[in-house]
Amino acid sequence: MTTEKSPLAPPAFADLPAIDGVAVKTARAGYKNWDRCDLTFAELAEGTAVAGVLTQSKCPSPEVKWCRSALLLGHARALVVNAGNANTFAGQRGRDAVEAIAAKTAEHLGCERHEVFVASTGVIGEPLPIDRAEAGLDLAFGTADASWEEAARAIGTTDTFPKGAAASAVVGDGKTVRMSGIVKGSGMIAPDMATMLGFIFTDAAIDPAFLQEMLNRAVATTFNCITVDSDTSTSDTVLVFATGAAGNDAIAAFDDPGANAVMAALDDVCRQLAHLVVRDGEGASKFIEITVDAAESDASAKRVALSIANSPLVKTAIAGEDANWGRVVMAVGKAGEPADRDRLAIRFGATQVARDGLAVEGYDETPVAAHLKGDEIEIGVDLGIGKGRATVWTCDLTHGYISINADYRT
Amino acid sequence: MTTEKSPLAPPAFADLPAIDGVAVKTARAGYKNWDRCDLTFAELAEGTAVAGVLTQSKCPSPEVKWCRSALLLGHARALVVNAGNANTFAGQRGRDAVEAIAAKTAEHLGCERHEVFVASTGVIGEPLPIDRAEAGLDLAFGTADASWEEAARAIGTTDTFPKGAAASAVVGDGKTVRMSGIVKGSGMIAPDMATMLGFIFTDAAIDPAFLQEMLNRAVATTFNCITVDSDTSTSDTVLVFATGAAGNDAIAAFDDPGANAVMAALDDVCRQLAHLVVRDGEGASKFIEITVDAAESDASAKRVALSIANSPLVKTAIAGEDANWGRVVMAVGKAGEPADRDRLAIRFGATQVARDGLAVEGYDETPVAAHLKGDEIEIGVDLGIGKGRATVWTCDLTHGYISINADYRT
Repeated sequence: MTTEKSPLAPPAFADLPAIDGVAVKTARAGYKNWDRCDLTFAELAEGTAVAGVLTQSKCPSPEVKWCRSALLLGHARALVVNAGNANTFAGQRGRDAVEAIAAKTAEHLGCERHEVFVASTGVIGEPLPIDRAEAGLDLAFGTADASWEEAARAIGTTDTFPKGAAASAVVGDGKTVRMSGIVKGSGMIAPDMATMLGFIFTDAAIDPAFLQEMLNRAVATTFNCITVDSDTSTSDTVLVFATGAAGNDAIAAFDDPGANAVMAALDDVCRQLAHLVVRDGEGASKFIEITVDAAESDASAKRVALSIANSPLVKTAIAGEDANWGRVVMAVGKAGEPADRDRLAIRFGATQVARDGLAVEGYDETPVAAHLKGDEIEIGVDLGIGKGRATVWTCDLTHGYISINADYRT
Repeated sequence: MTTEKSPLAPPAFADLPAIDGVAVKTARAGYKNWDRCDLTFAELAEGTAVAGVLTQSKCPSPEVKWCRSALLLGHARALVVNAGNANTFAGQRGRDAVEAIAAKTAEHLGCERHEVFVASTGVIGEPLPIDRAEAGLDLAFGTADASWEEAARAIGTTDTFPKGAAASAVVGDGKTVRMSGIVKGSGMIAPDMATMLGFIFTDAAIDPAFLQEMLNRAVATTFNCITVDSDTSTSDTVLVFATGAAGNDAIAAFDDPGANAVMAALDDVCRQLAHLVVRDGEGASKFIEITVDAAESDASAKRVALSIANSPLVKTAIAGEDANWGRVVMAVGKAGEPADRDRLAIRFGATQVARDGLAVEGYDETPVAAHLKGDEIEIGVDLGIGKGRATVWTCDLTHGYISINADYRT
């Protein structure tokens, strides 16, 4: 296991405000032989609205199935996160563990079991030990509140730094609502797999259906626009909880006062958290932003951008600080989306290196080389055929990735 | 550039029979600073039928466009292959180079320009120098015949060994027809990209439309079932030429005498060549065969198998000799194909490690560990929901891949 902090980590954990209506506790359930808290419990005020986006995997964890079903009700009183055991591919005993956690938490709070949201991350193929989960919950119920940073650490597995982000918005009646979020991902270590878990809390009052609509919109351009290695976890989960403690008039549509400001805040928090996951990508030495413009549609632009972001040849070229636009052309071509070789333009940083399907003759290589030596790389692709646009983020592919994922046995 | 032979290379170049109606020559055009032949010219008997499968890339090379158009006629008199310059993304000058090669060769043979097939591989973004191509052709026209091994070397770029395969078939009138093929791929070196070029020659008489039907069928389960890193070249080309010199009655349908035998031979040659490409995968230390059974359909099985084969987490686990079936579950899940977590079974080699969505309790790890230490790895996945089946081949993902593709600048 690599414990060295990613070179792309921010200098410090973000300063996140407390959210009225949310009390976070952490405890040591002992899922793994870790000397740290590995169970996170968030108690949420009555009437808290919830929305979620869960993995598209066809082999999801029982936690994912549980949350999907609980989301139909739209209200939450608690979140329980287990780190160190993904409880995936563990049969009936895995399902039992989720039910036991929900039942115990519901009993403690006097709420419905389906108001308890559960997420787990870590080793797969082993059922989560129910006795440890229950003992951990007992500890959490009786402990003092934890800080956001402590919670961000407790939900992590092979993360090399804790990840949080915040934003605020002024809603129609002049009230300021706050939003704080934490996320874990995407370090992996055998036999774990990458799981991204993100949890966002706000004191705004928001109708659950509209909260879901906003989250879908935010995730589409943030969490769903990042990729480390194109692999998708069986447990990926993003949940947003709105306690309503700010006392604003509940927001239920984009026409409502403050809706756009809250949407912007949610976008902002999701984007910050998503970027932090990329910055902790296994072996990452460069943060890469890829923007595709003038595609047939936004969806087409995103598919082309992800084809570039997931190309091992592009990612290794960036690791090698090589402005290899030929590999970008290849990745555009293999995306299978509408494109015209003779209109394609490519830039690295601010320098156009190819235009109209040809290398730009005599372009200045000095700023390109300087840009590639940095740790924030921008690749711009203009397809020249429409108005679609998308931006995605990834990291480079280095020896560090291989070491983390292949060398642990040797 | 790595010049060390892949550890997965066969002990020697295959013994390939000469094919009546085919004369192969090689020459040094000097596309790169290589002390070796880099232009290959095959003269084909009059009446040679041709079929081809070309890259799906939306940014194909002018050679690919040229061949696609020439294939409409269905007859070939020559093949010219350039190594060291892919002539891709080189604008009008790239197109001019292909036309010049076709024109000069057609003049030499007294045939139509569209009976000349052209393929190029190597650096992209630079037009193929017409003067060198023409001088190379002049040398080739005047030289003695080359061996298949010489031709296999001349079409290579960063290949670490030459690749060839042969088969034969007895057709209806008792005649034996022969088939010899060569292929190049898939080493890459900046700023080259992986290109797979495969050329198969037979003395059988085969109707062009039926030859295309047979090639489509063979490619679907061979060349299109291999992957090294999921990247697709702008120049990928497989062509098959049938000279008819064996004098058999032309085969035009699967009902015709010998058609099934020829189909089997073509399948065999394509599979052997495809495997050789995987064996030369960049940094490969293990050859991996992945079979997916009991999927909803063959097409669904293939998509699941390729999802596993392209997963960096699966490929690094194999490099680490780790029977990490959790990563296989993850890759099945992310394929987006019909699957049922609770029916999924997985084996490594002959040992079942997971069944009915659970680890097989107390399975014997000894044969699994021994299997993974070898250099031929088999992964079997049974989805338990249908009758679809597919097998694909790939290699592991190692430090060698990163070194070849990222380290050349440093």
